[in-house]
Amino acid sequence: MEEVAVVGNKKVILKNYVDGIPTETDMEVKIGDTIELKAPKGSSCFLVKNLYLSCDPYMRGRMRDFHGSYLPPFLPGQPIEGFGLAKVIDSDDPNYTPGELICGITGWEEYSLLRSSNELQLRKIQLDDAIPLSYHLGLLGMAGFTAYAGFYEICSPRKGESVFVSAASGAVGQLVGQLAKLHGCYVVGSAGSKQKVDLLKNKLGFDEAFNYKEEADLDAALKRYFPDGINIYFDNVGGSMLDAALLNMKVRGRIALCGMVSLQSLSSSSQGINNLYNAIPKRVRLEGFLQSDYVHIFPQFLEHVKGYYKEGKIVYIEDMSEGLELAPAALVGLFSGKNVGKQVVRVANE
Amino acid sequence: MEEVAVVGNKKVILKNYVDGIPTETDMEVKIGDTIELKAPKGSSCFLVKNLYLSCDPYMRGRMRDFHGSYLPPFLPGQPIEGFGLAKVIDSDDPNYTPGELICGITGWEEYSLLRSSNELQLRKIQLDDAIPLSYHLGLLGMAGFTAYAGFYEICSPRKGESVFVSAASGAVGQLVGQLAKLHGCYVVGSAGSKQKVDLLKNKLGFDEAFNYKEEADLDAALKRYFPDGINIYFDNVGGSMLDAALLNMKVRGRIALCGMVSLQSLSSSSQGINNLYNAIPKRVRLEGFLQSDYVHIFPQFLEHVKGYYKEGKIVYIEDMSEGLELAPAALVGLFSGKNVGKQVVRVANE
Repeated sequence: MEEVAVVGNKKVILKNYVDGIPTETDMEVKIGDTIELKAPKGSSCFLVKNLYLSCDPYMRGRMRDFHGSYLPPFLPGQPIEGFGLAKVIDSDDPNYTPGELICGITGWEEYSLLRSSNELQLRKIQLDDAIPLSYHLGLLGMAGFTAYAGFYEICSPRKGESVFVSAASGAVGQLVGQLAKLHGCYVVGSAGSKQKVDLLKNKLGFDEAFNYKEEADLDAALKRYFPDGINIYFDNVGGSMLDAALLNMKVRGRIALCGMVSLQSLSSSSQGINNLYNAIPKRVRLEGFLQSDYVHIFPQFLEHVKGYYKEGKIVYIEDMSEGLELAPAALVGLFSGKNVGKQVVRVANE
Repeated sequence: MEEVAVVGNKKVILKNYVDGIPTETDMEVKIGDTIELKAPKGSSCFLVKNLYLSCDPYMRGRMRDFHGSYLPPFLPGQPIEGFGLAKVIDSDDPNYTPGELICGITGWEEYSLLRSSNELQLRKIQLDDAIPLSYHLGLLGMAGFTAYAGFYEICSPRKGESVFVSAASGAVGQLVGQLAKLHGCYVVGSAGSKQKVDLLKNKLGFDEAFNYKEEADLDAALKRYFPDGINIYFDNVGGSMLDAALLNMKVRGRIALCGMVSLQSLSSSSQGINNLYNAIPKRVRLEGFLQSDYVHIFPQFLEHVKGYYKEGKIVYIEDMSEGLELAPAALVGLFSGKNVGKQVVRVANE
């Protein structure tokens, strides 16, 4: 009889459903039941060791007791889930063999038993010395693909157009801006700190950037950077920034509705959007999208963006938290803009 | 020397720029300076007798002291302007001869001196016994064309889809609903009185209709008529109806932003739109449009809609006010929904 290691499996548990903005105390890090490091025979599952976990704003939607969305809520008392990068330890699925690296939805825990049929966008990752492994959760993962699909498929960009990106140093925004620059656009980003504004201008190649927290009048700020108006607004925040952008769109402008991470848009005391009327005389199109509708161009995305990265044409900024213990703070930090760049949690070394 | 008639020219004057909702007292009907019923030699103008004037919600935009829009404001002390149907009385323009009927932007007055180069969408009208002359301002005019261009070019309708139309018995809405029915869609309209709801169901062929003033919860009303959601929302009102529709869109739904005539959307105390977030998980597209961008399909529109009308496949409801004296009340009435169907003013008999 073979000997199987049995370990305590550290987990990040959702304690209860959350209203509004999640806080660290909505989650708990604890050693769960012990787990055999083995995929049970006949289960068609495979056991992975989680290496990196991705923190994404959409996860807030799964922390609510709301079943009408495109993703089901998390289960209180159970580990939360999200995109992760993991190594196969044992497998009862002939398609996965120990030692392989995979990227897909996994549990926020040290070890997860996965089933390929349940996993969205599960894919195998080839080691490539030129690319940090964690980038498969950001630049080459859902965030990067959101930027790519949103910019090319929703924004219909043309060379020379003016592009505004909010949350511009974030996981999605930083790639949108760089793709827009490569496309020959004039690109301005907004962010919430001087450090982020510096990164946008000096590291990410944006033409201009501003700290929205220092602007008393967002409309005036946009008019300063876009005296002739905005062709494309890639909206990651909603709220008052979207409202101000609506006042500054050019005729036939396009707004990609990508996410509304702003505290304002999470709050029930929100003022709402008051300037949507402007979309009529300006013939503006606003379109919500999910990257998952564009999986058919994922291979093209990987090829293009890997290529740009290896040629030094784009860079990517990550914010790495070390250890599952810091995972709740990392996730919660997204909603106050604590992260600088793509927020990732390292669970274990490769 | 030929003898030229000289008459007093009754006019509807804008007294002052208007904030918010226009009232009758913002306008004045008076006999202006006398006018020679003649187009001055060398002027390249032609003189018309105005027969019918169109009352349209967009005119409110021209009553404000705001120069940033797609149309310039009216001039206080001068007659307001709008689409009209008129007969040429005299002409110094070789392209227009006395007796011809034209449709285009004219003054709210008995006689107007027009110049073809200044006129948007000026066109000649052929008498057709089967079609009331005033329909060239509604069914076959800007309102009808707005419905046609908006429905086919913005909504991308497919047979079997579910369509919601607000202000559904109005100049635009009544044609949108009928075109949608001819396209094989399920169509529900909202309006602001029992009489209008009856017209929608019994005369205009809508599948269902409801009086929004009797609904305490618009979201619940829409869920009642669209238990599986809305594919297409043709929005003529903005405000809380748009907000409720955003909660009920199906995946990849389309919202044509056509006009926001609701009192709410004119008011600075508006709550704003709070449900735009829903456009992301549902991948909803909202698009503002102006009929004037689609003039290339105007001939096709005329052919189709004239044909449908003559075949008895569509009807059109007009609300006719008699005489320039009633024109201010007719225009103002649009903003409280007094009109039943397309609001027109008869200035003179044909």
